[in-house]
Amino acid sequence: MNENSLNGAESLVQTLLDGGVDTCFANPGTSEMHFVAALDRIPGMHCVLCLFEGVVTGAADGYARIKGKPAATLLHCGPGLANGLANLHNAKRANTPVVNIIGDQATYHRPFDAPLTADTEGWARPVSVWTRTATTAASVGTAAATAIQAASAAPCGVASLILPSDVCWDAGGQVAKPLAPIPTPKVAPDVVAQMARVLRSGQPTLLLLAGRALEQDALGSAHRIAAATDARLLSTTMNPRVARGRGRLAVERLPYFGDMARTKLAGIANVILVGTPVPATFFAYPGKSPRPYPDDAVVHVLARPEEDLADALARLADELNAPPLTSTAALPANPEPGSGAITSQAVAQSLNALLPENAIVVDESVSFGHAFYPGTLNAAPHDWLQVTGGAIGDGLPMALGAAIAAPDRRVVALQADGSGMYTVQALWSMAREKLDVTIVVLANRKYAILQHELASVGATTGKTALDMLDIGNPDLDWVQLANGMGVAAARVDTLEQFNERFAQANRTPGPFLIELVIA
Amino acid sequence: MNENSLNGAESLVQTLLDGGVDTCFANPGTSEMHFVAALDRIPGMHCVLCLFEGVVTGAADGYARIKGKPAATLLHCGPGLANGLANLHNAKRANTPVVNIIGDQATYHRPFDAPLTADTEGWARPVSVWTRTATTAASVGTAAATAIQAASAAPCGVASLILPSDVCWDAGGQVAKPLAPIPTPKVAPDVVAQMARVLRSGQPTLLLLAGRALEQDALGSAHRIAAATDARLLSTTMNPRVARGRGRLAVERLPYFGDMARTKLAGIANVILVGTPVPATFFAYPGKSPRPYPDDAVVHVLARPEEDLADALARLADELNAPPLTSTAALPANPEPGSGAITSQAVAQSLNALLPENAIVVDESVSFGHAFYPGTLNAAPHDWLQVTGGAIGDGLPMALGAAIAAPDRRVVALQADGSGMYTVQALWSMAREKLDVTIVVLANRKYAILQHELASVGATTGKTALDMLDIGNPDLDWVQLANGMGVAAARVDTLEQFNERFAQANRTPGPFLIELVIA
Repeated sequence: MNENSLNGAESLVQTLLDGGVDTCFANPGTSEMHFVAALDRIPGMHCVLCLFEGVVTGAADGYARIKGKPAATLLHCGPGLANGLANLHNAKRANTPVVNIIGDQATYHRPFDAPLTADTEGWARPVSVWTRTATTAASVGTAAATAIQAASAAPCGVASLILPSDVCWDAGGQVAKPLAPIPTPKVAPDVVAQMARVLRSGQPTLLLLAGRALEQDALGSAHRIAAATDARLLSTTMNPRVARGRGRLAVERLPYFGDMARTKLAGIANVILVGTPVPATFFAYPGKSPRPYPDDAVVHVLARPEEDLADALARLADELNAPPLTSTAALPANPEPGSGAITSQAVAQSLNALLPENAIVVDESVSFGHAFYPGTLNAAPHDWLQVTGGAIGDGLPMALGAAIAAPDRRVVALQADGSGMYTVQALWSMAREKLDVTIVVLANRKYAILQHELASVGATTGKTALDMLDIGNPDLDWVQLANGMGVAAARVDTLEQFNERFAQANRTPGPFLIELVIA
Repeated sequence: MNENSLNGAESLVQTLLDGGVDTCFANPGTSEMHFVAALDRIPGMHCVLCLFEGVVTGAADGYARIKGKPAATLLHCGPGLANGLANLHNAKRANTPVVNIIGDQATYHRPFDAPLTADTEGWARPVSVWTRTATTAASVGTAAATAIQAASAAPCGVASLILPSDVCWDAGGQVAKPLAPIPTPKVAPDVVAQMARVLRSGQPTLLLLAGRALEQDALGSAHRIAAATDARLLSTTMNPRVARGRGRLAVERLPYFGDMARTKLAGIANVILVGTPVPATFFAYPGKSPRPYPDDAVVHVLARPEEDLADALARLADELNAPPLTSTAALPANPEPGSGAITSQAVAQSLNALLPENAIVVDESVSFGHAFYPGTLNAAPHDWLQVTGGAIGDGLPMALGAAIAAPDRRVVALQADGSGMYTVQALWSMAREKLDVTIVVLANRKYAILQHELASVGATTGKTALDMLDIGNPDLDWVQLANGMGVAAARVDTLEQFNERFAQANRTPGPFLIELVIA
């Protein structure tokens, strides 16, 4: 194709493809029509249509967590971006690379303040590591290449590229070559030496691991350190991706609730951070510390999120002369699935037994799922993805994105019903793309987490208040919701039925939704 | 209740009630638990639970358009606000009063940047006429009273009040008395005189009416002016609320598409604005004017949106010595409903015949509905509500809000399928509240408006591009979607079936959804 003949949108699509961005989650509008038209002229972009922008951005989050490179989004003006912000917030907290493309009013039309005009840049900036508006067709290619570079620089993030419609339709588009990746900085030697001194002090010390520090090689170094120094290992509470299961190194998570975390960390004198900011409890509670560790603990930093975490841990292990890991005794394979009453522990036992090899688990199970993560340590090897920013409604979209990223793997979405409704439109895209996703909806028909929270804040609970936490009037019928969007589904109300349906769904191509009714 | 015993949340609820805000659309989270608890201690607030924040804000938009006073929202932190921004954008464009309450991190917790922390104020500001964060329990009452006043001052708007959780749970809440409404300014006499001179010039002149200028008394003055001067009357394209139907004064709308608008306004020398900014086409198109009127037309302002529009029109009519209106010939009542092929015109004919007396029509019919508004001029008297900001997904939530505002009236939601999916969760709240809403889903199974737009921008259309505009793979089953949320529903594929179902639904208490399949 002659570059001189390209319009801005075509230069965008070609630059994205050249930069390795070959998947786009899209909910286009009028201002994106030239991008859509460019898809025909320049083949190679897998464009996944979504029926709501929160699905678009959550799918981009899930995709990149699995694929290790960004997808593009395609959003329509400020309000379209706004609908996608909550999951971009989650992506920001996960340090997920996303090339976030927002079509907008033509440069010369914006001053007229047409009805759809909004503060697109202002809304994008708080969730983005990089925000730009291209103002000429000739600059779109360079802007796109820079967006890919910015999104992919450690610790990664959302790069928001706003494209007025005229810069897309104008001639003079120039394809930009991919820019060299920005190197990930390594931790200074004196930092490693200082952390070794802390660990040798004999004081109770916690290594708090996050992000890439949870990859198996980095985790191996962490376990060497722990074995050599008696340091405690924990991961942060919400993690973008953890490789785990039989034969893999494991690490427990810092508990969500402050009281439980502080109990767990009682007596800790030093907290060494590896790829995480100083942790705070998710919320404040009256009269309680905002920190999950003891008030007198000293916080140290081995490596910041943007630094090379695996390298820092390996060098620290070496500095401590920590011996290599010896293999641990293998845990028994394929234990029995759960049976009897439908409890969190029993469902976890079923997951532990029945999770398919190399599955991707997307966990937005909120309150009912508290036993799932600890209870699946011995499942077949799998990846575990969580909602990282506390904005519910990322589960189903992430499952969609992960399935697009890994069409050869089964995705298992463990989905609370209340949060599942936020972005329920993701089911339709799963059906459209015929993705191998098993969705388990945990139908307790209330915002159970909030009943707990209502008690935590010491609030009284009368009928009017409790009504606000009750989504069981009327009950949602998830089988009909799924069927209505082209996804096969079944309702189960015993664990035995669940085990059967779950195993069957995981063997059957395409998406399947199981509504697990929790009494 | 002893005021000294109130916490901040309780002072908030009481201040809202004292200020006439007695309805709250809510999707609460942890930081809002004290507000929820306060509902039990202070009775009188009708709290409507919604399963997604876009439903909350759209419902608040629809409620206030009918009720003429604001509802409160209850949203959870920055991401919860973000999910509601698109419909707050619509509310902003409609000049709808909304008291937009956002719970957030405790004042002392915010600096720790817990996962859910976001730029709540920054996201709220672009859609708000007033944005404040309360920082002490004692100031919550005054902040709430000021928010009501700010939201209600002409031309009205969104007042965003951010409440950190500690200011809600701390003691010392003070109920604030309602503040006096801010007077609506009247247009200066010389402006009226000048507009009269323009109208007497004999040049072709358009009066472009918006907002309260479309209420019957104001419209009466506009018709007097038109009859006395040969001025043309048009309303803006998207209007928050128009009272119309048999026996009421009517006014045509400025066409959505620029080409059609410019054709209609060919030869116009003067445009007099009444309650609207200078109009621009919704989008720019390559090589076309961004204005819907001739390039050489002169734009004048009779009254700005925040001024007293009815007064300005009445004074202008008097200045022109325009005679009172004579009654027009009554149009025939109850014409026959449409039959045969399912066209926009035929469905409009059915609506014209079958719309119930005093109905509230919520129109998000997008492309297929182009004949609905002109075709229902002779229907039983009704109010017509439109999406005003171009952010689709306001239709079903507005219908919910309007039905809460007017439980004695039938709400008829004319809903395109693509945009209906954005905030489909509104159906559940309609079922929960047992609201008299008839939802007509126009199931053409594509983003038809975008097929038009793709052609308008001169783009080519191949298979990949068209796939992005096709939501028929798989088809959505609206009957199952509705049933899944507790709403009774039926699919019809002939106009005769539609007529029967529509009439029946309008006679039957509670919500009913009709999926009208458009071949």
